[in-house]
Formats: sequence, C-alpha cells, structure tokens
Amino acid sequence: MSLNLNTLNAASVEDFVALLDGVYEHSPWIARRAASARPLLNLTALKQALAQVVREASEAEQLGLIRAHPELAGKAMLARSLTAESTGEQSRAGLSDCSPEEFARIQQLNADYNARFGWPFILAVRGPRGLGLSRAEIIATFARRLAQPADVERAECLRQIHRIAEIRLNDKFGVEPILGNRIWDWAQALAQHSEPGFCEAGQLTVTYLTEAHQAVAAQLQTWMRECGFDEVGIDAVGNVVGTYHGARAEAPRLLTGSHYDTVRHAGPHDGRLGVLLPMACVRELHAAARRLPFAIEVVAFSEEEGQRYPATFLGSSALTGQFDPAWLELQDREGIPMRAAMQAAGLPGTMEAITALARDPARYLGFVEVHIEQGPVLHGQDLALGVVTSINGSRRYLGKVIGQAAHAGTTPMGQRRDAAAAVAELLLFVEQCAAASAGTVGTVGQLQVPAGSINVIPGRCQFSLDLRAPSDAARDALDAEVREALIRICERRGLSWTLQPTLAANAAPSDPSWQARWERAVAATGCRVFQLPSGAGHDAMRLHERMPQAMLFVRGQNEGISHNPLESTNNDDIELAAQAFTHLLDHLAAEGHTP
Amino acid sequence: MSLNLNTLNAASVEDFVALLDGVYEHSPWIARRAASARPLLNLTALKQALAQVVREASEAEQLGLIRAHPELAGKAMLARSLTAESTGEQSRAGLSDCSPEEFARIQQLNADYNARFGWPFILAVRGPRGLGLSRAEIIATFARRLAQPADVERAECLRQIHRIAEIRLNDKFGVEPILGNRIWDWAQALAQHSEPGFCEAGQLTVTYLTEAHQAVAAQLQTWMRECGFDEVGIDAVGNVVGTYHGARAEAPRLLTGSHYDTVRHAGPHDGRLGVLLPMACVRELHAAARRLPFAIEVVAFSEEEGQRYPATFLGSSALTGQFDPAWLELQDREGIPMRAAMQAAGLPGTMEAITALARDPARYLGFVEVHIEQGPVLHGQDLALGVVTSINGSRRYLGKVIGQAAHAGTTPMGQRRDAAAAVAELLLFVEQCAAASAGTVGTVGQLQVPAGSINVIPGRCQFSLDLRAPSDAARDALDAEVREALIRICERRGLSWTLQPTLAANAAPSDPSWQARWERAVAATGCRVFQLPSGAGHDAMRLHERMPQAMLFVRGQNEGISHNPLESTNNDDIELAAQAFTHLLDHLAAEGHTP
Repeated sequence: MSLNLNTLNAASVEDFVALLDGVYEHSPWIARRAASARPLLNLTALKQALAQVVREASEAEQLGLIRAHPELAGKAMLARSLTAESTGEQSRAGLSDCSPEEFARIQQLNADYNARFGWPFILAVRGPRGLGLSRAEIIATFARRLAQPADVERAECLRQIHRIAEIRLNDKFGVEPILGNRIWDWAQALAQHSEPGFCEAGQLTVTYLTEAHQAVAAQLQTWMRECGFDEVGIDAVGNVVGTYHGARAEAPRLLTGSHYDTVRHAGPHDGRLGVLLPMACVRELHAAARRLPFAIEVVAFSEEEGQRYPATFLGSSALTGQFDPAWLELQDREGIPMRAAMQAAGLPGTMEAITALARDPARYLGFVEVHIEQGPVLHGQDLALGVVTSINGSRRYLGKVIGQAAHAGTTPMGQRRDAAAAVAELLLFVEQCAAASAGTVGTVGQLQVPAGSINVIPGRCQFSLDLRAPSDAARDALDAEVREALIRICERRGLSWTLQPTLAANAAPSDPSWQARWERAVAATGCRVFQLPSGAGHDAMRLHERMPQAMLFVRGQNEGISHNPLESTNNDDIELAAQAFTHLLDHLAAEGHTP
Repeated sequence: MSLNLNTLNAASVEDFVALLDGVYEHSPWIARRAASARPLLNLTALKQALAQVVREASEAEQLGLIRAHPELAGKAMLARSLTAESTGEQSRAGLSDCSPEEFARIQQLNADYNARFGWPFILAVRGPRGLGLSRAEIIATFARRLAQPADVERAECLRQIHRIAEIRLNDKFGVEPILGNRIWDWAQALAQHSEPGFCEAGQLTVTYLTEAHQAVAAQLQTWMRECGFDEVGIDAVGNVVGTYHGARAEAPRLLTGSHYDTVRHAGPHDGRLGVLLPMACVRELHAAARRLPFAIEVVAFSEEEGQRYPATFLGSSALTGQFDPAWLELQDREGIPMRAAMQAAGLPGTMEAITALARDPARYLGFVEVHIEQGPVLHGQDLALGVVTSINGSRRYLGKVIGQAAHAGTTPMGQRRDAAAAVAELLLFVEQCAAASAGTVGTVGQLQVPAGSINVIPGRCQFSLDLRAPSDAARDALDAEVREALIRICERRGLSWTLQPTLAANAAPSDPSWQARWERAVAATGCRVFQLPSGAGHDAMRLHERMPQAMLFVRGQNEGISHNPLESTNNDDIELAAQAFTHLLDHLAAEGHTP
C-alpha cells in the first residue's frame, strides 16, 4: 500500500523515520531532522526537506552518507548483503548480468575510484527517466566521473543520492511523473532526427531547414494535432505554430514556445523542452475538455542558434517584425542562400510572407518560455526550477596589449613592458569586479601570447572579453570599469592596447507581473522559489521587444552543461515544470481575461 | 688646439662653461652644474659628470634640453640657423644632399614625430662608429623610434644627446677611440660571413661548422697571427686558440675569450666582442714588445648558442672536460651527425682528440670574459661598463592548469573553475616575487588557452616559467615560492595542474678576487663602478666549474636588445672596455705571477 503525505505529517518522529526507512541508505538521521519541517505541502516539499537536511549537514555527515552506500556491482551485491532497495536497483540495471569483461571493468573502476576519492561511486542507476541505465551508460559515466575534481565529485555523489531517494519515494508514494515521462519520451523521439556526418551516439545536430529540421517540424505538427490543438501549421520562416482556442473566439492569447533547431553536437532538451512542455499541458486540457478564458499559442521557433547562417533568432524575429530582408541573401557553408533553402523546404521565401507573420501585441497577454537552465546554478542549489529575473545584457570585445618583447633573463623586473602581465591583471580585475555584483559575469575566454617563447618577455598578448549583467546599467557600469582598468594598467606599465567591440546586446528584464506569476506557480508545486538571471540569450529576448515576457528555468544535470551531448534533465524535474506551467495557466484563468 | 683636462680642471666655472660651449646644444646649465664635480680624472669622467647632471635634472629641464635641438634636416638646416656642431653633423650625414623623396619622407616623419611626442627627433647621426649613418639608416631608425612608447623615446633622446656630446667632446679633445674603432671594424668584417638564406641586411647567422663559421675561424686565425700571438691554431672542436707567451716559458696563463658562433638573425657583437677585444689588447702589447709575467690565451669558442645541434657550450665544454661523447651522434636539421660535420670541416671528430683539449686548472690564473650585456641595465644607467657579480642560476618549466570549460554567460563567478584566471594569478605572483629580490627575474613567456572561445570559460591554460637568480639559494627559494603559489592557487580554485621541468642550471657567482680586479680596472678608466648579475648564460659558466672566473659587460644600445640585428654598441664603449682589459692586465702583472 502506498505511503501518503497525511500519514507522514501526522506520524510521530519515530514513525516518520520508520516510514522513510531505506530512502536514504542506512541514514535515519536525515528523516529524523526533516521531521521538524512538517507539515509538508506535498511529495516535492518532502523531497526538498530531506535534501535540505543533507545540504545543511556537516562535511563528515555528508561523507558518512556517501560511504553508507554499497559499491556498484561490488562485494555486497555478490554477498547478497545489499538493502532491498539497492538489490532491486542494481539488478534492474542489469548489473547482476554483467559479462566477465564488464564485471572486471567495473571492479577496476571501483578500485581506481576508491583509491582516488576514498568513497564508493554512487549513481542513480535507474537514470533520468527512472527506467534504468544500460551497463554501457553506467560504465561511461563511471569513467567520466573518475576524472572529476574531488569536490565536484563529492557534490555529484550527494545529488545522485537525492535522485535515488526521489525515485524510491516515488515508488513508496506510488506516483509516476506522467507528464515528465511523456515530454522526455517526445524529446528522445525528436532526437532520432539528426544531420548526417554525426554518427556517434548522442551527436544531435539539427540546423535550419535541413532534412532533419523538416522532419522535426513534421513530427511536431503531428503531435500537436494529436494533442488536440485547434490550429496547427508551419509558417513562412519554418516556425511550427499550434493554437488551442480559448473559451471564446475573441479571447486574448498567451504566447509560449522555444526553438527546435540545435547547435552542432547538441543535447536533446535545449529549446525543445519549451515546445514539448506546453504541448503536454494543452494535451491535458484537451483531454479534460477544458477551455480557458484565453487561447494558448505554442510556437516551435525554427531557428535560434545561428548555426547554418550567420544570423540568429530567425524564428522569433519574424513574429516581432524584425526579420532583416538581407538575411534572405545570406549563404550557408555550401553557398546556398537562405531564400533558396526556404523554397526548397516548400516555404515562399518572400519578405511579403515573412512580414505577414508579425504579431499584434494587443492580441497577446504576454510571452512565457520554459528552458533548460544551461548553467550550474539550480544544480548547485538542489532545486528543480528557477524563475528568471532577466536575460542578461552583454558586451564582447577582442583586445590586444602591446609591450616590448625582451630577454627574460637579462631584463630586470623594473624595466619590463610585459603585455601578458597586463592582461593577467585585467583578467583578475574582471573576475573580481563581476563577482562583486549579483548576476553579473565577466570572462576572458581567449588568451594568447602569439609565438611566445619560454625565455622572451611577452611583447604582445591577445585576449577576449565577455561581460554580461542583468540590466543595461549594470552591464555598462562593468564595461566602463573594465575599460578604465585596462587604460590604468597599461598606463602604469607603459603599454599600448586595442579593444575592438564585437557584440552588444541589451538586457531583457522579466516583466514583474509575469515573473510574479511564475513565482506563484513554482510555489504551488512545493518547490522553494528561487530567482536567477539568464546568462544565455533566448527567444524571449526578441519577444521582449513587443510584449511582456518571463521565463522558467529547469535544472540541468552534469553541472548544467549544455550545447553538449551530456546535457540532461530528468523526468521528475520536467514533471515539476509542467505542474508549474499548469498552475500558471490556472492562476491566469482565475485572474480573468485581461491581465 | 685641442682642449685638455688640466685646463678644464683649473678653469673658473664661467670658463669651464665657455670651454664646453656647444657640447650640449643651447644648454650651458649642464656644464655649470657639472663644474662642481671637478677635479675630473679624465675625459670619461667628464662625460659621465655631464650625463649625471642631466640624469638628475627635472623632467622639465630634460624636455627643455631635448627641445633645444633642431629637427633633422628641418627648417633650421634650410635656414642655415643651426649651431656649427649641428651643421657639421647633419651635412656629414649627407642630410643636406637628400633626394626630394628622402627629404619629403623625413619631413613627414618630423611632423608625425612631433605630433606624437611634442619634441624633435634626436639622433646622433655620426652613429656608433662616429663616422656618420647613411640616410637610409637614419630614416629606418626614425620610423622605428616613432612607434616606441613616449617614455622610452624620451629616454632614448637623452641618450642620443649624450652620444652627440661624447662625439663633440672627442673632437674638442682631439681623441679617437683607436682600439674601439679597430674592434668595431673587425666585428663588421666578420659579419660579412653569414649563412645563405638570410639575404636581408643585418641577417647574421653563423652556426657550428657551416661554411660561414669556418670562414670566421680562418679570419680570426689570420688576425691573431697579425696581432703577434705566438701560437695560433684551431682545435678539435673548432675553437680558435691564440697564445701570447709570458715573460718566462713556465709562466702561468690567463684564459679569456668568448664564442664566435651566433644565433639565427643575430647582431655582430654577441660573443665576438670577447674574442676581438683581447686580441686588440695583445696587439698593443706585441707592438710595444711587452711581455707580462703570465701568458694570455685567447679562445674563440666555436659553439655556445645551441643552434645547429641540440646542445650548447660545445667549445667551452671541451676545455673543461665536459664534452659529452653522445653529442657526436646528434644530428642537425638535415640529418648530418656532428661527427660528420667535424670531419667535413677537417677536424678529427674523435673523443680522443676532444678529451685532450681539457685544460689543467693548475696552469691557469683564471678566466675572464668580456661580453655585450644583452640587457637594458647599463643602457638605463648611462654607463658603458658593468662588472658581473654572478651568472644567474635558472629553472624552467612548462605548465598546464586544468579547470572546467563552461558557458561564460550562465556560470556564476562563484561556480567557475577558470584555468586562465589561475595562471593569471600565478603570473602576477611570479612578477611580484621576483621583483622583491635584487637580480632575480621570473617570466611567463608562453601563455595560451588552447582553442579558447570568447564565450567559454577556459578549461585549460598552458604556460611556461623561467626563473633566474644570482645564487642557487635565491633561485631555489623563488622556485619553491612559485611552486607553492601554484599549489595554493589551484587548491583554492579547485583546479589541477602539471609542471614539467625543462631546464635547471646552477648559478656561477664571480670569484671575489677576480670581480675585484674588474672593479679596479673599471675605476681606472674613469667609469663609475657598477655591478650587475648576468641573466643570460655565457661560456664563463662552464669555465666556472674548473677555475675562478669573472665577467665584464659592455653596454648595448637600443635598450640592450640582443639576438637581433638591432643589437649594437659603439666605438667609445668598446674603447673603454679595452682600456679596462688593459688595466686588468697591468694590475695583474703588478700583483706578481701567482695570484
């Protein structure tokens, strides 16, 4: 019989601990401390309360928790001395059916890992979909994590423990993330379509109007129809648009969506999550025959990443009337102009058709976008969801400092004009200055002494600067401080410099009322409300110029890595995001038609 | 009638100023202030006293001095309103015979220069040999200096003013640097021999046992015989050895010399000065039929630079019995083994012959080496000569810091593992740590984020380290501090690192009694005695392991640049070095036979 939250909230501390036995391996202290957090709103709040106890525990307690776990396919499995939960998980992952080679490989990894870190390797073998990783996936993950720094790996072990606990709690409560699983499965199915030339597993590449791109668009249209959207179509720039009517024909519209193109060598969730998630929510509305006081227009933007042509946000630019006619003449690597690519894909390829796509802001309540975070913040906070405060504004530069190359042995320290030393000072200044202001980042990503020699003082040093902040004012302040520092450093050191701007983008702060709606929706899921800026650009930046917008971020796994096949999330996090989206729709409906 | 020092020492201040009129253009205040430095030992001391007044003057006075000079081939020349000295110098340099194109070019340079710096371009047009630069040389120098930082260029103008004053004083006193001119001319004649493939002017390249190298060896032997050396020959490793006997057959020997090979694209004085200078001094002894109580053995070492084969100090290693037999098998870029190169040059190419070259330290008083400084210290001090305290010990490393590449926009400052930031910290630590200890230097010459992207936090950063100090203890202390800093920085930032040693050389501190002999000899020339360590390696490092040694440095022009065609010195500085060498011989003779 499944556990339920009323029982837990009403139980004595000892019963509470007993009821949660086996959730955190051999560590009843976690449930005991979490008991004081009752009453708990729901299962999500329970998971969060347990994780919070571990976060607040001492390092020794955390290590004790890690060490309370068995080795993967280790002696305890062979000796059949695992907990019931571990036995089920390890055998479900097929670890008891290892080939002799796989078994030997895992034993070697266990030995190397234990020698390096001094604790057992921990992995939620039921994986991000809750179904069980393959032995090959387990071994690949093991080998990758063996190479991580110790503190990163320790934190990762704790996160895997929380994930194991989450799956065990789902089992205990008899709940299943149905929307999360559906969206996950859709994303996996879409990832079957990839451009040729990327043959290895996980090499997802879908750029504008290629065969793979068109296949994804076709699949999305099919699914949208199945979900019960009233109107489904592809527009003149390749956006797939599905509309679910409101209760009345003249109802205002909520615009939502994200992009379905990818970078080269991408992960499966970047962009697509923000398309599939509202689709799944509309599917629920349609299944319940519900109509809201507003229509929902889901747009799968055809292009955001700027991979095939040297222009970005093609899809969302068409909706905001900012599609540049010159883009039609841009050529891809093979010399194919964009206009020809459009026509080959059955699109008109005319500005007349594209201009007609511009939306009238008066018909829209606003724009919301769900997106995987693409950063490590939520991962580091053990939070599934985060509300975006602003899409950061940015400035980029390519710079050069010119000093005097001279003999490294014979030139006294006081008589040097070391170009690299100046850039080193600048780099540390950027780091310190960005760290002093919340949400602001500054990076020297390129750094080189051209043709440097071990015994020559650098006469030249090249570098790049990438500065981002949640508001234009903060970005400009950082920019001014950094440029002043460059001047000051070079004057003091007797150096000259050049600084060439290569990009400037304005910040897109979230609309306060829409941000508040997301916060209320997140709170309703049982998640702690957490705010963060977006360091990366999104389609919402474009829509920002025509209507109020706000974004919801979903935690990424693996330190939030994105633009990489390692990009991942999991079914429970997606489920929570879908719940939040549903709450947002419900609250909006309750507000009335016109916010 | 020539001026002489007795007259100047005895004159009233007003007469002193009047007698030196025209030495420093329109600036009698310099002579007036220098008057108090009397009595002056000799012309060198006078030059030094005048220069010292300018060094100690205010910046405004220095700029006034610079601005008191006419433009090169400027309006004053055309209007015939130059001082007599300037008129002579500018017309001797052929500036009054410019072609219209040359004249237009110089006018444009004058305009650009004045716009950039706000003072006239000053160049001692009679040049380093006192004979007059060509118009092409003048224009090339003008263009080069136009690109220098303002403070470097201002200092250079003052140095050129001192050089102009030096030549004017030589004229007034009717003196000529005869030894300096001879050595200069020899060096120019030797520089005619260069390897093919370096066709541009000044592209001097003479590597081990090439045709050019053998031509230099033959020329040196011819000159040594003409100088009156008693024994002249080439040894089994290509060293050219000339011996000038002492008064008695069994007299002990003074060993001196330097190398005659060059780096690729070299200057004409590196190494060769230390061969040609003692040759010129022996020539004087022979001309005066003087025999000293010790023999003088001048060795032109065949190889020091390690350019053709991956081994250095081939010549001096043979004298100290440290020639590694494995070197004979080393191959050059064309696959020619060293042994074959030796045999092709008529040398035996056997270890038996090479081993026989080892000198018995008991027969030698010690080793002295004269060398161009190859650094900016003497140039910055306005001093022609410097006594070396030690040849610095060194350690070199190639290093790598490994962090985590991540999105520059989405990764908060506090969650980064920026490899380049760690190397930047290390670089500044090296700089600060080396600056805190006299004579010590530390350099990060190579610095690179491999495949860095403007929007990616550096996951890797490669760098080199070159650490040098006057004693092994100081070098090891710096080395330990830097390595500890690397560990500390990487631990704090959660990074890993590698550091691969590529070189370690012990310091060769000068023998105190030989250093004192050089100091006494320098003082006897009228030069202020100035001590400095050698940051570069020299043949003396090798001899150091078998006998007492000390070196004398001669100022280099152009910030002391070396291993470059811009490397230069001048006839007066060389003359002073030859005087110092002669004083050293005289003082040593006065000491008796066995020090």
